[in-house]
Amino acid sequence: MAKIVIIGAGAAGTTAALWAKKTDRKSEVVLITREPYPEYSRCGLPYTISKIIPDFHNLISHEAGWYEKFAKIDLRLETEVTDVDSKAKTVKVKNLKTGEEETINYDKLVIATGSYPAAPPIEGVKDKEGVYFLRTLQDAMNIAAAAENAKNAVVIGAGLIGVETAENLVEKGLKVAIVEFLPSVVPLMIDPDMAELVEEELTKHGMEIYTNTAAKAVLGEERAEKVLIENRETKETKEIPADLVVIGAGVRPYTEIAEKAGVELGTTKYIKVNEKCETSVPDIYSAGDCTEYPDFVTRQPLPMGMGTIAVRQGKVCGINAAGGEAKMLPGVLLTRITKIFEIQIAAVGPTTHQLERSGIKPIIGKVTGSSKPEYYPGGKLIRMKILADEKGRILGAQIVGYEDVHQKINVIAAAMQAGMTVYDLEWLETCYAPASCPTWDVLTLVAEPVIKKIARKK
Amino acid sequence: MAKIVIIGAGAAGTTAALWAKKTDRKSEVVLITREPYPEYSRCGLPYTISKIIPDFHNLISHEAGWYEKFAKIDLRLETEVTDVDSKAKTVKVKNLKTGEEETINYDKLVIATGSYPAAPPIEGVKDKEGVYFLRTLQDAMNIAAAAENAKNAVVIGAGLIGVETAENLVEKGLKVAIVEFLPSVVPLMIDPDMAELVEEELTKHGMEIYTNTAAKAVLGEERAEKVLIENRETKETKEIPADLVVIGAGVRPYTEIAEKAGVELGTTKYIKVNEKCETSVPDIYSAGDCTEYPDFVTRQPLPMGMGTIAVRQGKVCGINAAGGEAKMLPGVLLTRITKIFEIQIAAVGPTTHQLERSGIKPIIGKVTGSSKPEYYPGGKLIRMKILADEKGRILGAQIVGYEDVHQKINVIAAAMQAGMTVYDLEWLETCYAPASCPTWDVLTLVAEPVIKKIARKK
Repeated sequence: MAKIVIIGAGAAGTTAALWAKKTDRKSEVVLITREPYPEYSRCGLPYTISKIIPDFHNLISHEAGWYEKFAKIDLRLETEVTDVDSKAKTVKVKNLKTGEEETINYDKLVIATGSYPAAPPIEGVKDKEGVYFLRTLQDAMNIAAAAENAKNAVVIGAGLIGVETAENLVEKGLKVAIVEFLPSVVPLMIDPDMAELVEEELTKHGMEIYTNTAAKAVLGEERAEKVLIENRETKETKEIPADLVVIGAGVRPYTEIAEKAGVELGTTKYIKVNEKCETSVPDIYSAGDCTEYPDFVTRQPLPMGMGTIAVRQGKVCGINAAGGEAKMLPGVLLTRITKIFEIQIAAVGPTTHQLERSGIKPIIGKVTGSSKPEYYPGGKLIRMKILADEKGRILGAQIVGYEDVHQKINVIAAAMQAGMTVYDLEWLETCYAPASCPTWDVLTLVAEPVIKKIARKK
Repeated sequence: MAKIVIIGAGAAGTTAALWAKKTDRKSEVVLITREPYPEYSRCGLPYTISKIIPDFHNLISHEAGWYEKFAKIDLRLETEVTDVDSKAKTVKVKNLKTGEEETINYDKLVIATGSYPAAPPIEGVKDKEGVYFLRTLQDAMNIAAAAENAKNAVVIGAGLIGVETAENLVEKGLKVAIVEFLPSVVPLMIDPDMAELVEEELTKHGMEIYTNTAAKAVLGEERAEKVLIENRETKETKEIPADLVVIGAGVRPYTEIAEKAGVELGTTKYIKVNEKCETSVPDIYSAGDCTEYPDFVTRQPLPMGMGTIAVRQGKVCGINAAGGEAKMLPGVLLTRITKIFEIQIAAVGPTTHQLERSGIKPIIGKVTGSSKPEYYPGGKLIRMKILADEKGRILGAQIVGYEDVHQKINVIAAAMQAGMTVYDLEWLETCYAPASCPTWDVLTLVAEPVIKKIARKK
């Protein structure tokens, strides 16, 4: 029977808590968060702005009382961990409401402190009103309140959070411009050629897109009024009206507590963990957005930052901390998906650029097809790209389209996890029915150009 | 440069023809069919009855002239192969319009003669007007014409063709009853417990379902007026009004030509082929609904009868006949899908009953979940069942639900092809986003009960 202290009640920490109890009902679990709310879906936050998710409380998985009553977890809201002693195996905590301090001992410690938004070096970001980051439920409430009276929004950064926030501001009725430093939207997710359809969709919904563009300054007296941008190539500048500015320019990990515990950080400066989610310090685990973990393909450590990884690491931490045995896969596929307006965007594994940076030149297949057989009405456009090595092993895939995209990317996730090649994929026995999908799914068709290219190289 | 003669211009034969030309542009390809139309989607036929597919011609992939002009294929419509001499390597053909006969020599022969509907031993099926089978475009035209004036339809057989036809008759405005000999609908596709949701959906749309029921006779003077049915358990009989009767009670293979060529039939009395689609006779290949092939899991030969297999065998035949090299997987997964009204039904691998008949007692996991995260509106019910052996190897899966079912079954198809276990599936890194799918997809959750059951057995 272990006493397990978990710092951070996000997806990783809370999943760890629940799996610890599931693994050993008798384990004692203390779950600590600075926030006033128990675990909520961080990924769902943008949708509260448009009220697609009508109430902030919808995002909260379980009310605070549930943890004590049903899960038998000692949940501490608005509580900060101020210090940790990994020799004495204690943490010092402070109740942020009462100021009360306490020292809690642990057998196993889970650090799931997460990350916070990075403030880019843009003039006026820090001192102007009307400039927001989106990370916490409180942030979402603030943006939603500001959006009630705003007309023009500028979103800086066209990553996942950026485009999802932009979408919801459009749905809320604002005029929205999105500014991205790199040459295409969602650049860490998909290649520029695959992003074209996404940019069309955003534009179709009235969004202005400025790619390859730097945001230089937020202008205005006390409040944001405009954003000054500069095209990185032409050096042309422009001022876009903005009474609401949202920054989605990446994150930084909370590692102070880990460092106080003597936990080693990795090359990315995130917390280094192994397959069991163990850190360099005995009996200290870590999970979620504060960790780094090897990429499945390149085996190079990457900062984590996805819900799907957070819950998997949380499960591993929880099981192991409670005396069970669980292991992550040796690398993460980073299977990722979003839907912006009607378009679905998914990917798995590194992008072309990420592979090339690791010294791998992928062989690429790309097809455009339909979600349904040609003869059946209502089929929707779907474009798929696959990346393979010279032996045909699948290194990654990207899919953009208007239907079925998310589960198709899961097919490739399974294929990659199992080490399948494009030769396997070519003959994958996908299902077929008139109202569902064609005899040759894009999933199989996309293998053919790669196979041809490999054959030509021989 | 081979001369390739293909008997049958369905999905298998036509795919073979196209891949032969793709493999060796100089190969000479003769594609022979008794029907007056070039290749059309047989699976799409039911949807012409309701006019969901508005025109019969929508089902035809390419007009007859296209084959000569663009594909350089010698297409012979309304032409019957009357004899084959596998020593002299010739086929005798007869033009059904002109009566003209001709002998054509071949280097490679592809037998893709398909199958025809079985007439069950039901009184009145053969001699009453208003009783139809659905196999050819002409059959669909006949049923569609009859449906114009009919009020009450009875469909005998609740297999795929049966339920799809029944759905389209309902959409056309008829009152429809469906009679199934076995205890649940789509019994070769999914287990009875998984069929419950399907039966609810059919009933919701006004369909009467009689499972575990034998159709005894079609009653009426010259025309069908009623169908006499008998419950197999209670022996209760009933007469259901029917001015239109459609039989979907299985098929039989066309093997006459194969037998004339001396080609060996398998234990199922379908044509036996190997991974290269070779028959027992040199230079004679076979593909599609007239063949048998081993099941991926049980390795026992099964009659084929799915478009998805037909095109894959057709591709293998075409490539090999033209001098290339291609191979089927060692067994078929029979990945299958349909959508009836709003419900999607999918499966891969044998059902529980089929496994048990092969002496395999599967360990079963079953979960009910949602297509989207709980906090996001519009998620739809999805139920999944997985079958595994005592080592955790995945033997099959069934999914019934209102969204995303077809691509989820493709994930399991990939997992099975790669030999994945439930332990692999548990950690599959599926994608997650609020508007798309939950952090733990039913695909991964379904592994947990199986893992628990296996652990308890140890």
